[in-house]
Amino acid sequence: MSKYWSEAIRSLTPYVPGEQPKGSNIIKLNTNENPFPPSPMVLEAIHQFDTDRLRLYPDPDSSALKQSLADHFHVKTDQVFVGNGSDEVLAHTFMAFFRHPEPLLMPDISYSFYDVYANLYGIDVRHIPLQDDFCIALDDYSEANGGIIFANPNAPTGRALTLDQINALLQRNTESVVVVDEAYVDFGAETAIKLVEQYSNLLVVQTLSKSRSLAGMRVGFAIGSAELIDGLERVKNSFNSYPLDMLAQVTATAAIKDVAYFTQTTQQIIKTREWTNEQLLALGFKIIPSKTNFVFASHRYIEAAELMGFLRTHQILVRHFSRPGIDNHLRITIGTEEEMHAMINCLKRHPDIISM
Amino acid sequence: MSKYWSEAIRSLTPYVPGEQPKGSNIIKLNTNENPFPPSPMVLEAIHQFDTDRLRLYPDPDSSALKQSLADHFHVKTDQVFVGNGSDEVLAHTFMAFFRHPEPLLMPDISYSFYDVYANLYGIDVRHIPLQDDFCIALDDYSEANGGIIFANPNAPTGRALTLDQINALLQRNTESVVVVDEAYVDFGAETAIKLVEQYSNLLVVQTLSKSRSLAGMRVGFAIGSAELIDGLERVKNSFNSYPLDMLAQVTATAAIKDVAYFTQTTQQIIKTREWTNEQLLALGFKIIPSKTNFVFASHRYIEAAELMGFLRTHQILVRHFSRPGIDNHLRITIGTEEEMHAMINCLKRHPDIISM
Repeated sequence: MSKYWSEAIRSLTPYVPGEQPKGSNIIKLNTNENPFPPSPMVLEAIHQFDTDRLRLYPDPDSSALKQSLADHFHVKTDQVFVGNGSDEVLAHTFMAFFRHPEPLLMPDISYSFYDVYANLYGIDVRHIPLQDDFCIALDDYSEANGGIIFANPNAPTGRALTLDQINALLQRNTESVVVVDEAYVDFGAETAIKLVEQYSNLLVVQTLSKSRSLAGMRVGFAIGSAELIDGLERVKNSFNSYPLDMLAQVTATAAIKDVAYFTQTTQQIIKTREWTNEQLLALGFKIIPSKTNFVFASHRYIEAAELMGFLRTHQILVRHFSRPGIDNHLRITIGTEEEMHAMINCLKRHPDIISM
Repeated sequence: MSKYWSEAIRSLTPYVPGEQPKGSNIIKLNTNENPFPPSPMVLEAIHQFDTDRLRLYPDPDSSALKQSLADHFHVKTDQVFVGNGSDEVLAHTFMAFFRHPEPLLMPDISYSFYDVYANLYGIDVRHIPLQDDFCIALDDYSEANGGIIFANPNAPTGRALTLDQINALLQRNTESVVVVDEAYVDFGAETAIKLVEQYSNLLVVQTLSKSRSLAGMRVGFAIGSAELIDGLERVKNSFNSYPLDMLAQVTATAAIKDVAYFTQTTQQIIKTREWTNEQLLALGFKIIPSKTNFVFASHRYIEAAELMGFLRTHQILVRHFSRPGIDNHLRITIGTEEEMHAMINCLKRHPDIISM
């Protein structure tokens, strides 16, 4: 604490990201990274890049990247916003659209950064409880609000809403912005981008960190009506004119263009997820149906914290949240087949685990 | 304008960066970029980088980069903050330290992004006029304030303050944060980093975009007391855990370590600047003494806007600001010797220019 800090800074509770261990030999299933390297086209983009150009400022508008996203999603370039990871896109979204007198509505269990942004920008939040089966209860998002945000599929539960459910929400909630955070959508859920033409208050946020294997390059984007994108651009250009460096722009553009690689790797992860689910069920876990690149599981008899510690002693990292309601669950990222075999085999060696 | 925007967003006046033309054959002296490519060590860092790692999140703390900066400037790592360009560092600085009841003091002519940040975060500003010779009048920064910020050397004037002048300000201004933005300091001015141990309210901001030829990679940093750095980390971790991608971290670290290349290229730019000054004087320009990689010049008879247009028709871009008080000046970046010869020769062809 310092007398020099702005007052609001004193009460911040910053987000704590998952651990990034520096050693090798660790099986890292704790931050939902993709087990596959980025597309070969990403490598080629880096190796063909003329590094002398790094002396110049990058394109402040990331025009080539926006064009590739517009082409890929069949929207216009003025419906695309890009940022330094979807975290930056979300931060600007809170600033641009959620600072209203009415509270922001969000699930009580979701990406924990949402509360951090709200706190940073002084936004009132009303948390809406998940249903008992961990589904987002969109019917309960009915009061007057200054905005709605949720992740679909939700994190860390992995559960997805249908497009019909989201459509129904948008039909009745027309006076505030609805943000659908689709960080994990490519692993089996349905994107709401197809509703963007219909609803000028819908903003869909995605990232290249998960399904495009580019967490290391920090690129996220939002797709919505031109009037929402214009609001985001105003915030961005009042904050940092050049959020994406040259190499982030060229690698992200290459990753978006390589649809074949994207399809192949996401399908493989879905296949490995289903295998992992079966194995975990056979070891006495309860599983929430996941449409993401992770599973959210609790064991019938053994505490999650105990299992996390056990895996950790065997160099396998998974994530555990101490938040009441989910503190007996593990969030396990889907790695390669080999990594998931190793994780399952490790669990089988736990003294209290009995294969069924 | 949209009913969905937060109210404060409606009154924003975003920053407008200098033009980034997409064609080649243009002599680009309009955004103070370095004419030399980045250090060969930067190229090597990119080519040796294992691109498979891009599937993982980067180090959220940029530890290796912070260590290289701490070593270079003889401070501790907890006195170093890094961000996505000094623009992001400055944005977080405004959020962390300047939101107080008293106004922020800054020069009336300086980096125009300062007013944009203040507007974004709802900070009152009191502009202190420059002296008639364009020097920052630090003696006039005496009223109660919620912070002080200025660029040293100042932009777009190029004028530098001495360390003694900054020291005197810090002696009398102890209750608010003083930010010295040293984007251009390496071209002949003296850094205030050596005062950081003495004054816990001093924050010095620098960038790798100018003297390290890395504008394309977007890396800036701040050095100050641990308590100020902690305040910035709280904002950063409430905004974006991973502001620097992996390649930004490795290229910036390499650039900081190559002191020999840095010294050689900055010295060359200083030499070319002095040559350019002499030539401009001989063509009837008035020059403000510059400690930066640009000169700020006005012609005795010919209007700046006219000269900018003339150069532009010959594929040479320089910057002109329409702000009253400086609207008859050109800001001309120092390029290579060849580029400056071309610029001078072009001016000589202007019908109203008479060599003296």
